[in-house]
Amino acid sequence: MKSIRAAVLGATGYAGAELVRILSGHPSVTLTYLSSRSYAGVPISRIFPAFKGVVDIPCRDLDTAELCGAADVVFIALPHKLPMSIVPPLLEAGKKVVDLSADFRFRDLSLYEAHYQPHSARAAAAASVYGLCEVYRDEIAGAALVGNPGCYPTSALIPLIPFLRAGLLDPSSIVIDSKSGVSGAGRSLALSSQFCEVAEGFMAYKPASHRHQPEMEENLSLAAGRPAVITFVPHLTPMSRGMLTTSYAKMEKGLDEGKAREVLLDFYAGRPFVRVCEPGALPQTRNTRGTNFLDVAARVDQRAGRLILVSAIDNLGKGAAGQAVQNMNIMFGLPETEGLFAVPHPL
Amino acid sequence: MKSIRAAVLGATGYAGAELVRILSGHPSVTLTYLSSRSYAGVPISRIFPAFKGVVDIPCRDLDTAELCGAADVVFIALPHKLPMSIVPPLLEAGKKVVDLSADFRFRDLSLYEAHYQPHSARAAAAASVYGLCEVYRDEIAGAALVGNPGCYPTSALIPLIPFLRAGLLDPSSIVIDSKSGVSGAGRSLALSSQFCEVAEGFMAYKPASHRHQPEMEENLSLAAGRPAVITFVPHLTPMSRGMLTTSYAKMEKGLDEGKAREVLLDFYAGRPFVRVCEPGALPQTRNTRGTNFLDVAARVDQRAGRLILVSAIDNLGKGAAGQAVQNMNIMFGLPETEGLFAVPHPL
Amino acid sequence: MKSIRAAVLGATGYAGAELVRILSGHPSVTLTYLSSRSYAGVPISRIFPAFKGVVDIPCRDLDTAELCGAADVVFIALPHKLPMSIVPPLLEAGKKVVDLSADFRFRDLSLYEAHYQPHSARAAAAASVYGLCEVYRDEIAGAALVGNPGCYPTSALIPLIPFLRAGLLDPSSIVIDSKSGVSGAGRSLALSSQFCEVAEGFMAYKPASHRHQPEMEENLSLAAGRPAVITFVPHLTPMSRGMLTTSYAKMEKGLDEGKAREVLLDFYAGRPFVRVCEPGALPQTRNTRGTNFLDVAARVDQRAGRLILVSAIDNLGKGAAGQAVQNMNIMFGLPETEGLFAVPHPL
Amino acid sequence: MKSIRAAVLGATGYAGAELVRILSGHPSVTLTYLSSRSYAGVPISRIFPAFKGVVDIPCRDLDTAELCGAADVVFIALPHKLPMSIVPPLLEAGKKVVDLSADFRFRDLSLYEAHYQPHSARAAAAASVYGLCEVYRDEIAGAALVGNPGCYPTSALIPLIPFLRAGLLDPSSIVIDSKSGVSGAGRSLALSSQFCEVAEGFMAYKPASHRHQPEMEENLSLAAGRPAVITFVPHLTPMSRGMLTTSYAKMEKGLDEGKAREVLLDFYAGRPFVRVCEPGALPQTRNTRGTNFLDVAARVDQRAGRLILVSAIDNLGKGAAGQAVQNMNIMFGLPETEGLFAVPHPL
Repeated sequence: MKSIRAAVLGATGYAGAELVRILSGHPSVTLTYLSSRSYAGVPISRIFPAFKGVVDIPCRDLDTAELCGAADVVFIALPHKLPMSIVPPLLEAGKKVVDLSADFRFRDLSLYEAHYQPHSARAAAAASVYGLCEVYRDEIAGAALVGNPGCYPTSALIPLIPFLRAGLLDPSSIVIDSKSGVSGAGRSLALSSQFCEVAEGFMAYKPASHRHQPEMEENLSLAAGRPAVITFVPHLTPMSRGMLTTSYAKMEKGLDEGKAREVLLDFYAGRPFVRVCEPGALPQTRNTRGTNFLDVAARVDQRAGRLILVSAIDNLGKGAAGQAVQNMNIMFGLPETEGLFAVPHPL
Repeated sequence: MKSIRAAVLGATGYAGAELVRILSGHPSVTLTYLSSRSYAGVPISRIFPAFKGVVDIPCRDLDTAELCGAADVVFIALPHKLPMSIVPPLLEAGKKVVDLSADFRFRDLSLYEAHYQPHSARAAAAASVYGLCEVYRDEIAGAALVGNPGCYPTSALIPLIPFLRAGLLDPSSIVIDSKSGVSGAGRSLALSSQFCEVAEGFMAYKPASHRHQPEMEENLSLAAGRPAVITFVPHLTPMSRGMLTTSYAKMEKGLDEGKAREVLLDFYAGRPFVRVCEPGALPQTRNTRGTNFLDVAARVDQRAGRLILVSAIDNLGKGAAGQAVQNMNIMFGLPETEGLFAVPHPL
Repeated sequence: MKSIRAAVLGATGYAGAELVRILSGHPSVTLTYLSSRSYAGVPISRIFPAFKGVVDIPCRDLDTAELCGAADVVFIALPHKLPMSIVPPLLEAGKKVVDLSADFRFRDLSLYEAHYQPHSARAAAAASVYGLCEVYRDEIAGAALVGNPGCYPTSALIPLIPFLRAGLLDPSSIVIDSKSGVSGAGRSLALSSQFCEVAEGFMAYKPASHRHQPEMEENLSLAAGRPAVITFVPHLTPMSRGMLTTSYAKMEKGLDEGKAREVLLDFYAGRPFVRVCEPGALPQTRNTRGTNFLDVAARVDQRAGRLILVSAIDNLGKGAAGQAVQNMNIMFGLPETEGLFAVPHPL
Repeated sequence: MKSIRAAVLGATGYAGAELVRILSGHPSVTLTYLSSRSYAGVPISRIFPAFKGVVDIPCRDLDTAELCGAADVVFIALPHKLPMSIVPPLLEAGKKVVDLSADFRFRDLSLYEAHYQPHSARAAAAASVYGLCEVYRDEIAGAALVGNPGCYPTSALIPLIPFLRAGLLDPSSIVIDSKSGVSGAGRSLALSSQFCEVAEGFMAYKPASHRHQPEMEENLSLAAGRPAVITFVPHLTPMSRGMLTTSYAKMEKGLDEGKAREVLLDFYAGRPFVRVCEPGALPQTRNTRGTNFLDVAARVDQRAGRLILVSAIDNLGKGAAGQAVQNMNIMFGLPETEGLFAVPHPL
């Protein structure tokens, strides 16, 4: 089979670099084009010396014509708003696109516009598919444009959707408490990302006001068949990579731990990247570090009538670059795990 | 005024060592007696070389008669069950006692017995006071025995109690999501406390089954005047010291952020160790590290009808040794802040 | 080609688990046998849940007959002294062996006996080869038994040997200052490996008395053609994986930075795991994390007449499991990089 | 006694904030003036919320007249070059000054000019004293202007000077290998200080080209009575605070560990901030964190004829703010330990 030529726009951010890592080891892909405004002309291995001798492609300033000549699939790892103007010509040129920003994640553009800005690529948005692979696989398979989910939504939606679809939870009772590593804040300079401001500390930020909340609610409501209103609080953890989400919801029907585990096992049967923990075990972010796995466990608080779901991902893996490549695999009819199923590091 | 002679039992654990630190710098206290089974005969500064040249007292095997001759107040930083047999003779000898274990924290001993073991010092327990300083100060002032609160309960009760007392929250709707540094697990050897098992990772443990849950519920119910049934999930964070708790509850009366902040300001007026964050600001554990402060902020999620409370402490400070010394100050009629109000480190 | 059947003894230590990770992804290898005394009967993925769904082989108690029936090559990741009794029957049975302990690293057994204990497998030791791949490749290719180098020696020998062979340095002037991550201390419980005793701290240990010193000296002397007497001080760094070594030596002939870089480039031409940094760049452990690379740079202090060599490895990678698999590749005539050349993580 | 009025210029950097912490707890000092260009008008407790309720003084834009009216002693924690223009008018106004930059550290201004820039306050420089308290106490006592030593020089000079003064070491043989926490890089934004670029990594920087090298050599030469030519390599460690220095030198006279320890004990007798480790023990940065201590141990490598000195400080404590306040104590005739001898944290 002919190799798929792939481009990464924004290759020098953390998600971009992780895309470079995965794609350059992907057996069906040839990495052909890396864009970076700040580092045009510089080999990616100068910016990330870990790549030296393995991936040495130079970065360049984005040129759409050049890009269209060089790539079959384009991964966009740029801040939202930028992809809106980049995507339409790519689609016209027949390219497949996986966009990691929020620009193409919403079915209801008024939600996007209420939390981000006016949308300037409405036709593309209408045709885009939300790339939560384990839930929307069939739509993704036929899509030219995928809006790759946010890291927080990925970590919360995969555990909750099976229970909402089965009518087991009250969708107005959901509390989502997430904890993220620092790479989620990106590679741009910020005082709040400096080592001495993060190490040996823990904090909440944007309680009930983070922009991933409407993204979650749109998909939770769809699963529940009625409006989900959630309370979402993200937190910052002194680690580079990893995200753990603890979700709480009132049960509408009786559940015990065994049944709850089965709901997950049944829904994700045959989906190798969702790992339901062994009975008694709980997810830890370390077990998903550098991988595309989501580990999940369910606990039932019978006294309070609540289901507790704990899930762990690598925010740069299943929460960004890993899932983006998984989406590409689905879009191109490749095995879903191709290039993604490396043996994880034990520590 | 004559110096108070203080003893620390279990001086070589983390809470014990923090007690040694605070008490040896306390202007009204002379540290006279340190016990440690494992390190009898060894100066505390050999075990914690940070103390060298500042606190060099030797540890000894616990001997009650010797202890009674040497100390006016006894801090017990031993695992629960041990204090039950140690405390009664100390009380008979007229000593004041602050016990950091769970043995003397419960009003309802059946709760203790359901979650720990049979209680063998029921008379002492009946006379003990729960040492949550800002809430039960008057009872503490008259007590001979104080059960020093757990770290998780301290971090959750101080934010929630003012709202429950004012009838503003539904006590059956409370979710408490806590994140602790590793020193909370103590200084005993455990694979789960080894650096390589903790660093760059994050995990939940004992969801809805941690023993601090009944301790919280007893005090929340008391504040609400009706039974509180909570869901509590603790988490482990890759840092040594610090605890952040995010509490969620349904509001029974209308609140906005300004009013919620005032509930806290009013309740804790004149209580210098509870710091209500400036409007817009949120607590971070780093700001309380090494101190007896609890920082707290309230946010209102109007859409979901929920109050969100974020609080930060040092689990070894206000969550253990700091509050224990604050209790001693109250028991001996000293200014509450004495020996505890050092300027915190900026990083 | 028929798959090589591989066994890992001591699979649940950190080096053992890293061997499991690498070998189970190696295209020419089938992992057939894992031993662990403490976890016999337990799948390796219960002990390291990162492996779940990817490597689920059970551990078993070591049984030599069983082992010989199951494996063509045996990796031993057990504490020294144990391999001495395990290796001889394996060699007799025609197995190839890579031993990660110190037992088979020394040419001069009196050095081993002076720093470890009496040697009980002298014939095997006499036939063993020191597995520093880039230096002794030809001997390794013909060996049945390889003594895999220690992490500190690997990090220091690769930079120094080219200069000593070329007669450029005074072998009596060498100072080696190494900094290691905590996984180097292994997975056994130790107070000094607990998170709270390591985090936010840095220390030296065993200055001029670490057992890797004679291992270094034997190989440095061989390279220099005269006795090397070094001063070696290892240090512990608050990170899980990684090792950086700074070596200092008096120059015997004039060198500048460009020439020094060329000495390295020439000596390691065609050896893909030794990466000489770009001019101006310096090694960082993060760039080698999870890989078999050694990054190295040379600087010249003309005023003091000293060469400074800075090298970085992953102590579990090139410093242990990675090099062990590289040795296996050489012993079996496979391409040296097979199964080892994954794209490194950018963070 | 009348309280000394103190000012801190550059109060919002890490060293500045640590000065604020120490001075606001100093019994003989009143903090009266904080300058910060970026945060003029903002209370220091908004920038460092750890200070909230304890130190709430506002920052202001530097105004020399105002400053002279408000302060008796001025601590300058600004980048070098700035102090050169600020100091002369302060001295004329009769103020005492402790400058934490390099501007007033050199006896030989040509050294300063070779490594920094032309010096524009030569008269002030000529009258300044190098503030290494334990070595130059008498000169400091009479000085109006003290150049506070750099963190690296402090950590290396205190261990080495006693041996050089006694003629025990070859001053041309010294290698100094230092490891610093990240706060040494200051609070300005830098990619290399971002959490994800530092955590779980270790690196060398500026080998044999750091500007603290001439500062060290000037003072080592003075102690030896002949020129010291050193090789100095600093490293960056993934921790916020702390510095460990390992120094190596050829012995010119016989020494063993006991004698070496006595050289240190004798030289620093009566100097409480230099703690010579117990026999067998070694310094760890954690034991000095947040303090003004320097912990030191000597080891002798008889085979190589080298003395090894290991020393630990807090780079913001004895390496910056702590020593600056110690200098003030000496300049004002206060007990050297006043305001500085708090009990260190055990973790």
